[in-house]
Amino acid sequence: MNDFEFFYPIKNYFGKGSAKTALKKELPKYGKNILLAYGGGSIKHNGIYEELIELIEAAGKTITEFSGIMSNPTYAKVQEGAALARKHQIDFILAVGGGSVSDCCKAVSAQAKLDTDLYEYEYTEHKVPKQGIPMGVIVTAAGTGSEQNAGAVITHEEKNWKGALWGTAASFAVLDSYYTKTLPMKQVLSGAFDTLSHCMETYLGAPREANLSDQMNESVMRSVIVNIRKLKLDPENMEARSELMWASAMAENGILKIGKQTDFQCHMIEHQLGAYTDCNHGCGLAVIHPELYRHLAPVAPKQYARLAVEVFGVDSLGKSELETALLGIDQLAAFIKEIGLPTTLKEMDITEDKILRAVADTTVLMPGCAKKLTPDEIFEILLAVKG
Amino acid sequence: MNDFEFFYPIKNYFGKGSAKTALKKELPKYGKNILLAYGGGSIKHNGIYEELIELIEAAGKTITEFSGIMSNPTYAKVQEGAALARKHQIDFILAVGGGSVSDCCKAVSAQAKLDTDLYEYEYTEHKVPKQGIPMGVIVTAAGTGSEQNAGAVITHEEKNWKGALWGTAASFAVLDSYYTKTLPMKQVLSGAFDTLSHCMETYLGAPREANLSDQMNESVMRSVIVNIRKLKLDPENMEARSELMWASAMAENGILKIGKQTDFQCHMIEHQLGAYTDCNHGCGLAVIHPELYRHLAPVAPKQYARLAVEVFGVDSLGKSELETALLGIDQLAAFIKEIGLPTTLKEMDITEDKILRAVADTTVLMPGCAKKLTPDEIFEILLAVKG
Repeated sequence: MNDFEFFYPIKNYFGKGSAKTALKKELPKYGKNILLAYGGGSIKHNGIYEELIELIEAAGKTITEFSGIMSNPTYAKVQEGAALARKHQIDFILAVGGGSVSDCCKAVSAQAKLDTDLYEYEYTEHKVPKQGIPMGVIVTAAGTGSEQNAGAVITHEEKNWKGALWGTAASFAVLDSYYTKTLPMKQVLSGAFDTLSHCMETYLGAPREANLSDQMNESVMRSVIVNIRKLKLDPENMEARSELMWASAMAENGILKIGKQTDFQCHMIEHQLGAYTDCNHGCGLAVIHPELYRHLAPVAPKQYARLAVEVFGVDSLGKSELETALLGIDQLAAFIKEIGLPTTLKEMDITEDKILRAVADTTVLMPGCAKKLTPDEIFEILLAVKG
Repeated sequence: MNDFEFFYPIKNYFGKGSAKTALKKELPKYGKNILLAYGGGSIKHNGIYEELIELIEAAGKTITEFSGIMSNPTYAKVQEGAALARKHQIDFILAVGGGSVSDCCKAVSAQAKLDTDLYEYEYTEHKVPKQGIPMGVIVTAAGTGSEQNAGAVITHEEKNWKGALWGTAASFAVLDSYYTKTLPMKQVLSGAFDTLSHCMETYLGAPREANLSDQMNESVMRSVIVNIRKLKLDPENMEARSELMWASAMAENGILKIGKQTDFQCHMIEHQLGAYTDCNHGCGLAVIHPELYRHLAPVAPKQYARLAVEVFGVDSLGKSELETALLGIDQLAAFIKEIGLPTTLKEMDITEDKILRAVADTTVLMPGCAKKLTPDEIFEILLAVKG
């Protein structure tokens, strides 16, 4: 177990009807002006919007709406939200949606309290924002775990950059799996795969000796796999939905990252793919993961072999660590195919080599827990999954 | 997954030298008057006392000492600490020790801010204290996980009662496994068994369908068992000590209890045994657990069988759930014997039937997740392990 500092002051309200409990307890703590943020408006068709408006008005608050937050939220949208928040002297942001809405609002919260441009502040001045408008997140699409931390993945269109900005963590999160029921199944599955990806990227970091964080992580990964299968068989299985929703939170609330160094290389590559193609995040991860791991496993076969045995049930008897590791990656690939996520970029309508080259050339990788890939290696991986 | 609310705002500083980091960051947040609380004075022999005094003085604080906190801390000691805190207008309590010191200080913190007697306030007026003196805990003996929550186990000698008072949770905890190095091995092992007991009592609660909390709990239990064995072989194994220290925190920080109802029946019985005999907590648990579970397993064989398979490696093939469950309990008993904890009350010098009868008659049990034991059943269990 490496040394660490850990602090997790986000209050979670989990279960059916938890939005009502949460807003009754939480809204009185904040000022009058609420920014109600959401995406394309699906909450207006499934009853969630009306329910929340009623709860916010019952708390005696004034609502400013901030709508149209897109998947892969843009930096321009962040600036729009920040301007709106300043103009209406917003006291509290209520983000209603999946990771895109939550990420956008975390950046809006920080930008609204900052005179400097947020991107420049973080990437040129190398500073971290110290304050923001308080916010809460009501999750309507699980997987990103965005409601559990302060990181915000934003697409800066002018810079062809998709990456993490440091925003404001929510004070509370509402996790009601019934709020995910009208979401298209493909989005539910790609979200759940995002959770599995967070777990794997954490698990495959350093150190690679057995430790409690990794052992709990194995339990989370096994649970995610089992419950994706259950939900695929029966989309009405609320128990599976609720297990996946809490797994999504656990993968990103920091508990599994305790004592671990991570590089999140698959996410870094996928982010650039998203910056150039606006693709679905979970689908992009699904395509990249197996091939990326075939490149990385030879460098750190022990931990990849452990993943194979503990999570994918590979029998290691008589096999080398690398052989075991590669069988595990085959299992991962088979699982992705089984649940109907794409296995090639072609299935996602990404076909141009020059885009893949640009993705490879602009992906910024950290030194890397197994090894740091070169742009040529990233390009090679992307070509291999082009289909 | 049952519905839940979860909030865990305790900052953890983990690793070698973390006391220094923690106190430098945390002490400036509080007023000048510090109550430095500790037990029998072992910290004066291993260098911890001098190190902390230096850090507290460097922060410009005034120290009042509150020492001599005994294992199974008494209600009288709580009152002594509260009087001291009031007299010296204490702004912050720094508890240095194991669960006894931490528990005592959590109750001191609440009592110091309350005009009413704390026990009467909670057990006659059925109220929960809403404020307390802020505090931090520096853990020198792991196992109770007391630093992770607001519960305080206190012995009220006049009432022959040992039970939980609701006190103040620490704002931060320091977990440096090097601080446990001079602790007698028996205390290290009985503490680690306390962690395993917390895990089992949580796991065997309701619901008993597979869920993420239980699955992570299985990982924690397996880790505790493996690392107790490692540490028994080599007391200098700091990696094992540090894994056990974080497992102790995880067992009581609430993560594994998410969505679970628990009854902690073994703890409730052991608390009364402690009230009458002042016995070691972990040793008392070790003696009671297997026999108690032999009584409870027939009522909830499914979850006891799962414990047997997932944690104790029992092969369930061709066996009934109850047969599997009972084999798991045999494994638990064998493990207790293997690590040298007592298996009979006689080994703890508890031999009088009238004491066991009093323990059985005064144990207050909740309705119970498997079933609520009668005083006669508790007496029967205690007689069976008398030895």
